[in-house]
Amino acid sequence: MSAQTTAASTVSATPDALLDALKQLLGDRLSTSAAVREQHGKDVSYHEGHPPDAVAFAQSTEEVQAIVQLCARHKTPIVPFGTGTSLEGHIAALKGGVCIDLSQMNAVLEVNDEDLDCRVQAGVTRKQLNEHLRDTGLFFPIDPGADASLGGMTATRASGTNAVRYGTMRENVLGLTVVTADGRIIKTGGRSRKSAAGYDLTRLFVGSEGTLGVITEVQLRLYGIPEAMSAAVCSFDSLEGAVNTVILTIQSGIPVARIELLDEVQMGAINAYSKLDYPAQPTLFFEFHGSEASVREQAETVGELAAELGGSGFTWSTLPEERSKLWQARHDAFWACKQLKPGAGGWPTDVCVPISRLAECILETKKDIEASNLLAPIVGHVGDGNFHLTYLIDPDDKDELKRASEANDRLVMRAIAMGGTCTGEHGIGYGKIPFLQAEHGDAVSLMRTIKQSFDPDNIMNPGKVLPA
Amino acid sequence: MSAQTTAASTVSATPDALLDALKQLLGDRLSTSAAVREQHGKDVSYHEGHPPDAVAFAQSTEEVQAIVQLCARHKTPIVPFGTGTSLEGHIAALKGGVCIDLSQMNAVLEVNDEDLDCRVQAGVTRKQLNEHLRDTGLFFPIDPGADASLGGMTATRASGTNAVRYGTMRENVLGLTVVTADGRIIKTGGRSRKSAAGYDLTRLFVGSEGTLGVITEVQLRLYGIPEAMSAAVCSFDSLEGAVNTVILTIQSGIPVARIELLDEVQMGAINAYSKLDYPAQPTLFFEFHGSEASVREQAETVGELAAELGGSGFTWSTLPEERSKLWQARHDAFWACKQLKPGAGGWPTDVCVPISRLAECILETKKDIEASNLLAPIVGHVGDGNFHLTYLIDPDDKDELKRASEANDRLVMRAIAMGGTCTGEHGIGYGKIPFLQAEHGDAVSLMRTIKQSFDPDNIMNPGKVLPA
Repeated sequence: MSAQTTAASTVSATPDALLDALKQLLGDRLSTSAAVREQHGKDVSYHEGHPPDAVAFAQSTEEVQAIVQLCARHKTPIVPFGTGTSLEGHIAALKGGVCIDLSQMNAVLEVNDEDLDCRVQAGVTRKQLNEHLRDTGLFFPIDPGADASLGGMTATRASGTNAVRYGTMRENVLGLTVVTADGRIIKTGGRSRKSAAGYDLTRLFVGSEGTLGVITEVQLRLYGIPEAMSAAVCSFDSLEGAVNTVILTIQSGIPVARIELLDEVQMGAINAYSKLDYPAQPTLFFEFHGSEASVREQAETVGELAAELGGSGFTWSTLPEERSKLWQARHDAFWACKQLKPGAGGWPTDVCVPISRLAECILETKKDIEASNLLAPIVGHVGDGNFHLTYLIDPDDKDELKRASEANDRLVMRAIAMGGTCTGEHGIGYGKIPFLQAEHGDAVSLMRTIKQSFDPDNIMNPGKVLPA
Repeated sequence: MSAQTTAASTVSATPDALLDALKQLLGDRLSTSAAVREQHGKDVSYHEGHPPDAVAFAQSTEEVQAIVQLCARHKTPIVPFGTGTSLEGHIAALKGGVCIDLSQMNAVLEVNDEDLDCRVQAGVTRKQLNEHLRDTGLFFPIDPGADASLGGMTATRASGTNAVRYGTMRENVLGLTVVTADGRIIKTGGRSRKSAAGYDLTRLFVGSEGTLGVITEVQLRLYGIPEAMSAAVCSFDSLEGAVNTVILTIQSGIPVARIELLDEVQMGAINAYSKLDYPAQPTLFFEFHGSEASVREQAETVGELAAELGGSGFTWSTLPEERSKLWQARHDAFWACKQLKPGAGGWPTDVCVPISRLAECILETKKDIEASNLLAPIVGHVGDGNFHLTYLIDPDDKDELKRASEANDRLVMRAIAMGGTCTGEHGIGYGKIPFLQAEHGDAVSLMRTIKQSFDPDNIMNPGKVLPA
């Protein structure tokens, strides 16, 4: 069931009449240049890209509507595009068609201080939003690493390092403006904190990866910037000790903001890359948010838990420069990884399991990687049971790619067998489609029912999420 | 657009052949007695009840499946029933048919301490679950007041007093087992804390009020019982002062567990009923969860905020008996209300608005109630912007009922105009159907698309949620 990088061949599906009409609508903001098309068909994953036939740069919801209406008339595929930082081939135009680039829709439309919410156009990135919020005392916490667009983060149900405290996009999107496959503008949800009024369309579009409609505006929850933050680092002799520390921290109700796990391979890489001398052991990185007294108490309590479970060298600080230093290793992880095997490409993947199975899942996976003669450091957002591997692959070594692909199949099936999911935060795209049925069984048929009823002509990002 | 209490007349839709087949399947667990049918057609709202033609007491998911398959064959309506404590006529058998009572499906199927989750049959009530969890150090926080079934709470997207900290059923259901309208058993979601794998069917069934399928099992998040709790009470000269204290508390990131607002009418009623001498003023009740140090700090910080905004008599305690005393008034609210007007029936309703509009919404509503010559005390889960009115209505006074109905229309439209929702936690049932379109506009058409594709014969709780 290998999922890796082979997709149906591109079939151009965009008639000239449509291109002419789009040109008339958008002028220079319709591009058919090879460079622009290539760039819009390939994300930062290892999966093969497929350029769209044209790229339409939209500037308003109404313009998206007009583009969708034109495409719908010709039954031409539509692929929404934010920043192209997705990781499972989400933006590959597998059936050709028109890519709608939303990056010019980058206005923050409103910020409601008292209600801790805001409304943004889909192309606003998370860093743009936080920059905009700088003087308000508020922030938007979801941080998937890349400076992704908030529309794209919504579409892929993104999360990241601090989901353990603030949740994922699922918990932080209050409402949406969406252009449906038949070219209507629909508003879902609303601004109230909770509602029991009707079906939860907002949550249906969150994570739908452009297959049910084009998200053009997002209403988001915001949070007050915490009065204080503290950071901590701790090494462990064994992975079990580290994971048990995480379990006990969560069970104790400590409102930890981030808990990241790096394995000994990753720590070794970081020491080499950043000239650090951390023990090359499983290591936890923590961040705590709250009042001055509370972040002190949280750090001290976790320090005690860690010590009981074999943690050593627990260090913490509330000073910004010290905090940065403690997190430096975590931030360097990606580049340190790349340097482990110069010239190699990185194939990132993620799974998520119930936290009680996390140590077992990681240990079996590490054994498998070793037995497969692969190099693939592990980092994890372990408060949620979510971990990431990056297979480092020599682009000229077809056998290595095959071994990685097979190891990835086993990783995903292992996670599913443990009650987990084939992806905690990257999404399905086309890379993980082969696993959807294994995870969800007959529920996939209900997903298909929804897809067919929302998009009977299958023009919305075809070939993604659902098995053909 | 009056929504109150008039429903389409009951049309018996259950052929004898179906009743015979159900009798054969269930024996004594199929009832057609008038008393059982009456009891299953009427919830605790003011809306008219409609008895089903028969009540089937199911004991397993497979039995629910068999019942649904039989009903589907005859295109006979199905109404799922938990405890009958819903508040918008959710269980009225408007088109006759078969009520499936799930109360005998009351097993806690698994508790996973380390993962902070559990799986229950749909008929388990929240108090049964917490009783079961007693020795684990864990608890399930969602508390809508009534001891509702967890299946019913899922179906209505229930929440309650501590949603401000723990979220609603939307945030706390990890997965579901559902019997679909065509009689299949589907499992949605899973046990991992987060997933980006496919459409969020779990959230689609949460709040679908039995119109998309019958929920038979629920996977739920659990929480560690906090080390310490503190409670606090504070009176305010003005409603604005109370609401601004709430806004500042939330903005400051104080992880308050409950904030309840009672208006001066309600406080007067409580003083009379419980022989207390609280000032008959807008009053806030708080609860804080955390470590000993943290609940002390939270209470003290909120006390300071309240004092700056005109609060007086701020009192707090961590001692259980003191806490109970502080919350006594809140717990007595319902009965104190009833005594304001002996012999009156109570019509409870709820709306939810962005918190910045809460004071304005409540004040306009109070003015309207007074001008309409009605008695309707207000309590609110104000941390979420959610508040409740109970219209006290003389059962023999048709004009009073009419005035209440009209005031309720205005209340709901006022909340919607302020960016709020027609119901924060009670649901739509049939009582709030007239407002769905006003709130959601064309999004209702997408809800209808889902309903039609999941239940083309409209046998699942027909006449609820969606306008005819």
